[in-house]
Amino acid sequence: MNKPEKIRISADALREMVSTMFEKLGTSAADAATVANVLVWANLRGVDSHGISRIPRYVEMFESGEAKAQSAMQVAYPRLAVITIEADSAPGPVAMRRAASEAVAVGRKMGVAWAAVRGTVHTGAIGYYVSEVADAGMIGIGLVAGVPNMAYAGSNAAGVATSPIAIAVPSERHGTVLLDMATAVIALGKIAQFRQSGTPLEPGMALTAAGEPTTDPALAEIPLPVGGAKGSGLSLMIEFLTSVLVGNPIVAEFHTGTPHGQRHRQNGTIIAVDVGAFGSTMKFRAGIDAAINAIKALPRAAGCKEILYPGERGSRTFEERSRHGIPIAPGPWQKLCKDAQKLGVSIPEAVSPG
Amino acid sequence: MNKPEKIRISADALREMVSTMFEKLGTSAADAATVANVLVWANLRGVDSHGISRIPRYVEMFESGEAKAQSAMQVAYPRLAVITIEADSAPGPVAMRRAASEAVAVGRKMGVAWAAVRGTVHTGAIGYYVSEVADAGMIGIGLVAGVPNMAYAGSNAAGVATSPIAIAVPSERHGTVLLDMATAVIALGKIAQFRQSGTPLEPGMALTAAGEPTTDPALAEIPLPVGGAKGSGLSLMIEFLTSVLVGNPIVAEFHTGTPHGQRHRQNGTIIAVDVGAFGSTMKFRAGIDAAINAIKALPRAAGCKEILYPGERGSRTFEERSRHGIPIAPGPWQKLCKDAQKLGVSIPEAVSPG
Repeated sequence: MNKPEKIRISADALREMVSTMFEKLGTSAADAATVANVLVWANLRGVDSHGISRIPRYVEMFESGEAKAQSAMQVAYPRLAVITIEADSAPGPVAMRRAASEAVAVGRKMGVAWAAVRGTVHTGAIGYYVSEVADAGMIGIGLVAGVPNMAYAGSNAAGVATSPIAIAVPSERHGTVLLDMATAVIALGKIAQFRQSGTPLEPGMALTAAGEPTTDPALAEIPLPVGGAKGSGLSLMIEFLTSVLVGNPIVAEFHTGTPHGQRHRQNGTIIAVDVGAFGSTMKFRAGIDAAINAIKALPRAAGCKEILYPGERGSRTFEERSRHGIPIAPGPWQKLCKDAQKLGVSIPEAVSPG
Repeated sequence: MNKPEKIRISADALREMVSTMFEKLGTSAADAATVANVLVWANLRGVDSHGISRIPRYVEMFESGEAKAQSAMQVAYPRLAVITIEADSAPGPVAMRRAASEAVAVGRKMGVAWAAVRGTVHTGAIGYYVSEVADAGMIGIGLVAGVPNMAYAGSNAAGVATSPIAIAVPSERHGTVLLDMATAVIALGKIAQFRQSGTPLEPGMALTAAGEPTTDPALAEIPLPVGGAKGSGLSLMIEFLTSVLVGNPIVAEFHTGTPHGQRHRQNGTIIAVDVGAFGSTMKFRAGIDAAINAIKALPRAAGCKEILYPGERGSRTFEERSRHGIPIAPGPWQKLCKDAQKLGVSIPEAVSPG
């Protein structure tokens, strides 16, 4: 298949469009800006599967009641270093940004803080929230659990979620260093990209809906866990550290078929660690730089042009797309424009590709 | 090659022998018991690479001064939820158990606690320490960084360590659920086992010392990271969250060739989360059981006899070895007995295999 040509929209114009759409969908102006920032950030970083292509699903979720544009989010402080946020089906960006800012404020005082979010939807690219923690000069760690869509080691069915873990640290010369990884070998969004371009998957990446191994992207439905028992074990632990901890279990309810067992919902955690509690923050930032310099200078394996530190590729994409606009495939763009038109939101002009 | 026959020693007799050896090596009786407990626990769980086979190396490290039998360990509380432990080259089990007990005490009050250990040696099977946190009814998370021995994605040289992450949670009916995973595809100890039995490795597991891919266990020196950039990125982040945080960088110093850059040393972190801060601990334990029951009931892939939860195999080995004694290969046993004899420690009788 030929790749259809993408148009480029400037990040500012896209944020403006998305933000206005969410206001029309009923969120406050502040929440609309938050959702727009988080989604467009994912596109800027090159994680298009977690960006504006998710908006039609948001529209559906607001209509079905799975998500609430105006939620009664409740924040509690049960212990000095713990924050719990009952999200009441608020959009993930709204609940998770609140978790990040609470974790930063409490972590600054206590040295470490654990902010737990209960019952949100679509947390998106969680690198955003931990990057905010790193921007505050702290270490950010994020975990999210959702509805099972990945095989558990030994099983050929969706047993656990592709639950991500993200860690961000501040540096002096390399910006925010960000690891943002799913526990699957391949992300569902990536399978969709292989499907669009007709490229076969590698063996060991995914199963069909019936649980058979496949390399055909048109049949691939269930990604396999990274490292087998390691990836699926980590995903199950993320379910324990988020969903079970806040009394909103997803894995067990999904498999035992409770009324809302299959409904989309997510639980998440943001941990903030104040570097300054352990020593000099300047020394910490310099230490990150020194380690990265050492890693980038390692001998390269055959075929490797450059050794990258976690998040380096995303940072470069961010720079490029910030300058030249975000490339969007015609399909997702048309879907988004249709939703925008329904809401009476004007559609920005494309910028010429740079 | 034929596998040489193993003898079985009872866990109690082994602990007694090891503990007496460490007392003779100069540690306090309490510290000797701690080291013996942690090492023998690894053998009981089937993690023989982290058990009593490490004792000859301890003897070496005490002699060279890399480790101290009587260290001046210093514990500080820079913030309400943070504990820092300057280990002063104390054996890993002594420093890490202290971290676990401090994290439990502080976490109980604050909801979460972060205990950082600076400058210890050989932390061993870190599942032990997080299991102690789980035994206190809390969630335990452990991280350890050490001297680079694993390839970093894109490089064909040892760039980062096979740094482990361990997570333990308490349940009602499944005991302590424990994920204890290295960030490598295969552990160095496992490569040694393949070498002893002459079994070839699978492709993609390891490199030779010269950085060439190999399946020959005799040539395999550098394990590859699990999931490529994911495993090595996680390992680098563990270095940041332990070594760089406490101002004792290992990765950077190793590669830039500082005087002690290649010296064995480790830094670690134990995090304790009080489940009771978030809701009912009974409900949490029951929730873990429910998720595990759901996972174990998943449809099985071809060739899979039973789906296991994290730590299940180790728990079974623990039960079996607690009853019938710990099987030890002749080589490691003879080495250990030689060290015991030098120290004037009597050697226990073998039990008949059960």
